[in-house]
Amino acid sequence: MQKSHNYEKASIDLHAKYKGKLEIRAKVPLENKEDLSKAYTPGVAAPCEAIAKQPELAYNYTIKANTVAVVSDGTAVLGLGDIGGLAGLPVMEGKCLLFKRFAGIDAFPICLDTKDPDEIIKTVKYIAPSFGGINLEDIAAPNCFYVEEKLKEAVSIPVFHDDQHGTAIVILAGLMNALKVVDKNLRKCHIVIAGAGAAGIATARLLIHEGAHHIILTDRKGIIYEGRDDLNLYKERIAKLTNREMRKGLLADAMRGADIFIGVSHAHIADRKMVKSMVRDPIVFSMANPTPEIMPEEALKGGAKIIATGRSDYPNQINNVLAFPGVFRGVLDCRARYVTDAMKVAAAHALAALVKKPSVEKIIPGVFEKGVADAVAKAVINTHRHS
Amino acid sequence: MQKSHNYEKASIDLHAKYKGKLEIRAKVPLENKEDLSKAYTPGVAAPCEAIAKQPELAYNYTIKANTVAVVSDGTAVLGLGDIGGLAGLPVMEGKCLLFKRFAGIDAFPICLDTKDPDEIIKTVKYIAPSFGGINLEDIAAPNCFYVEEKLKEAVSIPVFHDDQHGTAIVILAGLMNALKVVDKNLRKCHIVIAGAGAAGIATARLLIHEGAHHIILTDRKGIIYEGRDDLNLYKERIAKLTNREMRKGLLADAMRGADIFIGVSHAHIADRKMVKSMVRDPIVFSMANPTPEIMPEEALKGGAKIIATGRSDYPNQINNVLAFPGVFRGVLDCRARYVTDAMKVAAAHALAALVKKPSVEKIIPGVFEKGVADAVAKAVINTHRHS
Repeated sequence: MQKSHNYEKASIDLHAKYKGKLEIRAKVPLENKEDLSKAYTPGVAAPCEAIAKQPELAYNYTIKANTVAVVSDGTAVLGLGDIGGLAGLPVMEGKCLLFKRFAGIDAFPICLDTKDPDEIIKTVKYIAPSFGGINLEDIAAPNCFYVEEKLKEAVSIPVFHDDQHGTAIVILAGLMNALKVVDKNLRKCHIVIAGAGAAGIATARLLIHEGAHHIILTDRKGIIYEGRDDLNLYKERIAKLTNREMRKGLLADAMRGADIFIGVSHAHIADRKMVKSMVRDPIVFSMANPTPEIMPEEALKGGAKIIATGRSDYPNQINNVLAFPGVFRGVLDCRARYVTDAMKVAAAHALAALVKKPSVEKIIPGVFEKGVADAVAKAVINTHRHS
Repeated sequence: MQKSHNYEKASIDLHAKYKGKLEIRAKVPLENKEDLSKAYTPGVAAPCEAIAKQPELAYNYTIKANTVAVVSDGTAVLGLGDIGGLAGLPVMEGKCLLFKRFAGIDAFPICLDTKDPDEIIKTVKYIAPSFGGINLEDIAAPNCFYVEEKLKEAVSIPVFHDDQHGTAIVILAGLMNALKVVDKNLRKCHIVIAGAGAAGIATARLLIHEGAHHIILTDRKGIIYEGRDDLNLYKERIAKLTNREMRKGLLADAMRGADIFIGVSHAHIADRKMVKSMVRDPIVFSMANPTPEIMPEEALKGGAKIIATGRSDYPNQINNVLAFPGVFRGVLDCRARYVTDAMKVAAAHALAALVKKPSVEKIIPGVFEKGVADAVAKAVINTHRHS
């Protein structure tokens, strides 16, 4: 936890100074009765009536066109776990900042006072009219899967659980470039994913969609295999698509002979011996935050060829902010109803392509590199147009 | 409807140009990794943990301190009636503009995809963590009374249905000054309120709280009296507090001998004969929008001494914007749990006092006069401190 300590005091000071990191501002003039009569009564009756007759006009006349709800029940906030909606508000505000900074999207934090998945679904459905998209955030697995699945049916705007799909997109992008560097083929690689929560399961699915054949997931109890008697519905489903050799055992057993380790576990669970047991040029994505599954120094000693983390103080930061702003910019601009798997893969390809010459220390664009969100948005829009 | 026609085209153009009248902006810098580490991960964990331990700190570290939800189910929007949440969005955005323009409050429109009062209550309760106050808007009577009553119990932040209380406050303020001009005493006046919806019932209650003894409400079926067999719960309750003489009949019967007419009916229902039947120096507040219960010219011919409307093209505009920004500024700043009747009366007194020399043509401050919200906020805060 040493790293976050450095920023604790500075962050508290920043938050105390600004009392909230977002503000809501007028885009229209409001200086006199004339302005008021157009932006508000009596003139405003005209756009209201137009929308009542033709609901799609909401995208022409209201904030719906460019506004996303960042929705959280606060059950899986950072490494803090279940701290509730209110305590999660600083994170959700932060997320909204990123939407604006990187994609010009107006995002508003909706922090929920319920953890009941059916109540979350109903609440979001009921508040959906004001929004053009829903970004689910920091909702613990397995509820996050259920909530996203049902919400997609319940509302007519895109729903995207960033902890799942944002993470999966950026991992896939980084992996594409890492595989170029070590000259391996995703289809043939043996991949271990440590963590079978939101990120782990979504990453497995996206890698399978992209052609990966040999994936093993692990959770706290070890390797996940079809028929293991303590699996929730979502682990059961992914068990049918992974580990077809039906291997059993612990993480160390899974890693023996693997090409790629992907840690999305929120725990410090791997060591250099495990890396040593992998095959030629191991790729180690160790993304638990703030303390990775294995620290980069340790992975290097184990022989890792390419190392990525979630942290900004090491090379190759796998950060969701590379994906979600552009994904939403894309679906808002082409008014797509869903974020499809094809869009996610296209986004990953676009991200990977931004690194002109992938190398051990550079497999993914930096957070503040220009054009990232644009490239992702274009990929999403092109995919939508050709679907 | 002639007036709104003037603004229809201009309003559509404005809305089409800006595609939403609000935007969400960062208040904090976000230009480099350092900024990101304070506003977002890893630093943001610190304010989250602090709030998890001590929930009140949300007011120090988040947008909660200055953010209000403008919540509507779109069942009573302007004169348009039940057009639904989505079609009501341009109005709710407009309302948010006013919050910012007049009181520096960040307000966000929550337009609901449900009209079920219990679902509205649950939804608002669940999204309350992000907000410091709830402004209910354009929810039809009688549901609006039920929703407000139950929500006050369900959430720990102020809930204020502006169509009720904002209207009542500004009417009371205007009436105070009108009574000074004609030298009459509220306690002795006979008052007719045409319209027993949100505004009518709330106005009656506030006038009673301020000492009025002789109030008669009317609805489409005529005078409301205790025991009338078609009254909803809220009309039944107000019937017990008004019309103690148990008068019956139509609006014209109620107006005979009255000192004050207050129209909040959304219909053109009065004529000069009715005004002629009132006593010395009739006060006529004719606030149906856009077409008043009786047009000012007609009321004047009937002998009205003081005339107020809801319109900006006649003197004495009774406009909620004189009240709600200051009321919320006040309760947010002193962190009051409720907007009390005492606060509403204090707000009305503060508003009335802003008109130094009340006259026939000037009983209420203009919408763009400076210092209005400040004066109202101060009155609310002082009332809270002395309660």
